[in-house]
Amino acid sequence: MKRERRFLVLADGSLTPLDAKTAVGALRFIPEQVVAVLDRSRAGRVAGEVLGISSRVPVVSSVTEGLERGANALLVGIAPVGGELPAEWRLWVEEGLRAGLDVWSGMHTFLSEDASLWALAAEHGARIFDLRRVPLSMPVAARRAASLPCEVLLTVGSDCNVGKMTATLELHRAALADGIRSRFVATGQTGVLVEGAGLSVDRMISDFAAGAVESMVMERSEAADVVMVEGQGSIFHPGYSGVTLSLLHGACPGAMVLCHHAGRTAIRHGGNPIPGYGDMVRAYETAASWVSPSRVIGVCVNTQGFPEPEALSEIVRAARETGLPACDPIRQGPGALLEALKSHLSARRSRA
Amino acid sequence: MKRERRFLVLADGSLTPLDAKTAVGALRFIPEQVVAVLDRSRAGRVAGEVLGISSRVPVVSSVTEGLERGANALLVGIAPVGGELPAEWRLWVEEGLRAGLDVWSGMHTFLSEDASLWALAAEHGARIFDLRRVPLSMPVAARRAASLPCEVLLTVGSDCNVGKMTATLELHRAALADGIRSRFVATGQTGVLVEGAGLSVDRMISDFAAGAVESMVMERSEAADVVMVEGQGSIFHPGYSGVTLSLLHGACPGAMVLCHHAGRTAIRHGGNPIPGYGDMVRAYETAASWVSPSRVIGVCVNTQGFPEPEALSEIVRAARETGLPACDPIRQGPGALLEALKSHLSARRSRA
Repeated sequence: MKRERRFLVLADGSLTPLDAKTAVGALRFIPEQVVAVLDRSRAGRVAGEVLGISSRVPVVSSVTEGLERGANALLVGIAPVGGELPAEWRLWVEEGLRAGLDVWSGMHTFLSEDASLWALAAEHGARIFDLRRVPLSMPVAARRAASLPCEVLLTVGSDCNVGKMTATLELHRAALADGIRSRFVATGQTGVLVEGAGLSVDRMISDFAAGAVESMVMERSEAADVVMVEGQGSIFHPGYSGVTLSLLHGACPGAMVLCHHAGRTAIRHGGNPIPGYGDMVRAYETAASWVSPSRVIGVCVNTQGFPEPEALSEIVRAARETGLPACDPIRQGPGALLEALKSHLSARRSRA
Repeated sequence: MKRERRFLVLADGSLTPLDAKTAVGALRFIPEQVVAVLDRSRAGRVAGEVLGISSRVPVVSSVTEGLERGANALLVGIAPVGGELPAEWRLWVEEGLRAGLDVWSGMHTFLSEDASLWALAAEHGARIFDLRRVPLSMPVAARRAASLPCEVLLTVGSDCNVGKMTATLELHRAALADGIRSRFVATGQTGVLVEGAGLSVDRMISDFAAGAVESMVMERSEAADVVMVEGQGSIFHPGYSGVTLSLLHGACPGAMVLCHHAGRTAIRHGGNPIPGYGDMVRAYETAASWVSPSRVIGVCVNTQGFPEPEALSEIVRAARETGLPACDPIRQGPGALLEALKSHLSARRSRA
């Protein structure tokens, strides 16, 4: 990972906050490493305008344009359900490899195991990095993280794709800026891309998913005040709830931050209703208690796309229904969460 | 799987109900396929006497003795945490392969991917079956099983290794004998061995664990009154709770049977306390409700090793604390559970 990365991000037809999760994560958290985004349907615009974020990165319609802007790497900026590379994208990946671009992918299907792509990479001196590559096994989790001297904080969510990674990284950065020795544990392909370390827990064999989280938390805990673990999925998600519970019981957090996307009322994949804020807090605290007790200390409301008055009233509602500090860490900054964390750490110290 | 299997079961130093889970499962549910068990520390006895079950299979101390008794296959009868083959066992596996025995293994580490074992098998016309081999991916679960016309029943537990597979198979057999069109879904290596079908869900990539369960339930649901899904792990287990929740949210059972090993008060791997019967029922019903509502309809109490009076009083306690039928399906037979199932199915039909 030593070579400076200048990404052309592939997000064709999917440059929206809900689809191009990895692309948006890269634009938000490693903007200095992104030179262009490929989305033919939005070419000629800038990514920030399309996504409603502050990015001036141009949207282009070909790999050639990315090369002209200095790209030395391709990022596969989607992680579709099931994780297969769309046939058309394969041509761009091949074109990139032929031009010597490294390829970074967050898909379940490893591009580095594709014999023809591998041969192309070798021929042109390019490398393929699969962000979801994880070890076959890890020690089985056994509540080791519950007895750490430092605090562990985990973001938990109402559904997938509600802003858990963003909330974690924003709070982590605010904590560092405030002098708190915070460590970030990346648990998904985008977090691993941004942090340059971590494990995509959803790719672990189920028996070892919690153990992978536990191992990462233990490893990052030294000389830390708080280890912040990027959450995944939701206990309300029919397909991914097992990943979420593995994170909760592997990390044994003392503190959780609940994340929700304002206006979403049902799980996008499955259709079951999303409970109210108060019920979600109780559900996560109950699930934690089965292995190690935990409390939700604040709520992150993703209000992207909402006009200011509606956004603020939703945030107020979240705070009222839970009795906890709430904010939109992007719209308002993570100040309210940082204060909640500081009170929590201080109360923890005085108990110790 | 066409060749008739006559197993020599490897369980050296571990022929106890808690350690040799796969061996015990084979002895209990496919006894006609087991000719001997290898455990040097218990050689000369019979398996039933060692395990407290009704098996006359001899315990031997060498592969040669197994061959003399007509073995044509070796079963690796342990599934240790982490799943590596003990070095000494490797010699027996090699000896078996040289004698042309097929090898069946339930370990996470696939013996069929071991180049030297593979070569040995090829040389001697033997085959290696890894019971935990599963597909890379499956459709992500999306509550499809919640709308099946038939009922789905899942066994859930206080911990690993409390008798979920045994309870499921006993109830399944009793249901079939009673004219109920019951289908069994094997979700672990022993269940797959016994049933000759199924998927070891704990070996699935986390994102697809619930989907694997959902797919199996859908596939087995045709012309069924009830699909019975073998449970795995426990929501109270720090390492395996994710697997358990994947089963619960993938299978969307309308009915659950709670299984507990009498006398166990803490999770063996982690040390956290096991809640009382009533709290366990509430915890599982709560966890189910996040995706699709479910009710515990009965309790299985594994009282192995308890004298009759203590066993019966524990079973009475389980019934009293939950208000549900309870029994030890081995000690007493699964009659009480079968009655609970029949009432449940009948109430379900009258609602439909």
